[in-house]
Amino acid sequence: MREFILRSLKGKTLDINLNNLIEGRMDLVCRCISNALFVSNNVRRDVIIHIVLEGSGDPPRTVSFFGETIKKLGLDEKSIAIILKNALNVGKGLKLSEEKNVQEGVKIAKKSFEALIKERKNIYYLHNEGIDIRKVNFPKDVVFVFGDYIGMPRKTEGLLDRLSAKRISLGNKIYFASHCVTIVNYELDRKI
Amino acid sequence: MREFILRSLKGKTLDINLNNLIEGRMDLVCRCISNALFVSNNVRRDVIIHIVLEGSGDPPRTVSFFGETIKKLGLDEKSIAIILKNALNVGKGLKLSEEKNVQEGVKIAKKSFEALIKERKNIYYLHNEGIDIRKVNFPKDVVFVFGDYIGMPRKTEGLLDRLSAKRISLGNKIYFASHCVTIVNYELDRKI
Repeated sequence: MREFILRSLKGKTLDINLNNLIEGRMDLVCRCISNALFVSNNVRRDVIIHIVLEGSGDPPRTVSFFGETIKKLGLDEKSIAIILKNALNVGKGLKLSEEKNVQEGVKIAKKSFEALIKERKNIYYLHNEGIDIRKVNFPKDVVFVFGDYIGMPRKTEGLLDRLSAKRISLGNKIYFASHCVTIVNYELDRKI
Repeated sequence: MREFILRSLKGKTLDINLNNLIEGRMDLVCRCISNALFVSNNVRRDVIIHIVLEGSGDPPRTVSFFGETIKKLGLDEKSIAIILKNALNVGKGLKLSEEKNVQEGVKIAKKSFEALIKERKNIYYLHNEGIDIRKVNFPKDVVFVFGDYIGMPRKTEGLLDRLSAKRISLGNKIYFASHCVTIVNYELDRKI
């Protein structure tokens, strides 16, 4: 199982403006979801992606997409934004740790990034001083953590280190989170 | 110089509906442009991407984006679709081989895919029986040709072969054109 966790520090937590996905950089969030879950015309059944939204409104909200069970998922930003908007609507007024189903394969919870990663092991995150991804022997079940365009707060790096998360690198260039998701999927595909 | 050529068999040639980019799969076209031109927060100055639109209306139209000179380019599908819509407007009534400037770093021409690739050398295209991209020594200037979700017509493969285009492979999986663009950029970045 491949699990992706995207921390979106400005991601909208109450509502999404479908006509302006740049607000809270929801366009980037949507592209990450699309890139995580699709290979050619198929959904990647072995992928889960969690989006932790921490922007203004009522943070945090974690929306999770399960490739194994999801149906009716479009590839484009707007189709995915409609699902996120619906998820935020279903998740209105959620209490801490409470979780609700949005549609088959999609859930929303009032759960923080820290709570989410503390429950996990085999965590990897991208770092320019990390080990080259091509030299890493990954276990069968892996978790990849990404920051959005703002990057990961230093405090979070501390927590990741305490959880023995491993730093990996994609080479000399720095990529957008949405590109990183595509590249990590590709690098793992090539190891199978 | 890295040049990408995307052939969009159903891509709109007269106008774009910004509220429904799925028509003609303009969403995919926009993602290809974004993935070709951006690395982290910078435009890739060494990249050109040509989109050959062959859908209904007044085909063909080739819209070209030049990383070296482009300004005011958003990353998201809608921002890019606005530029394409404007390009189609500027390109209304173009005669064969005629070309017009749309904005700095963006041009539109009434030029066919065949005419475009006949002017080029060092052409590569993805094929499941191609040579592994990791084993290819690319020249400094390269041209990558992609089909959209419909793929490349067999006749085109014949032309590509006559032009000595080389078949390359990204491994065992088949990816969307937009993912292929990200992966090819990444593989080339790793060779520098």
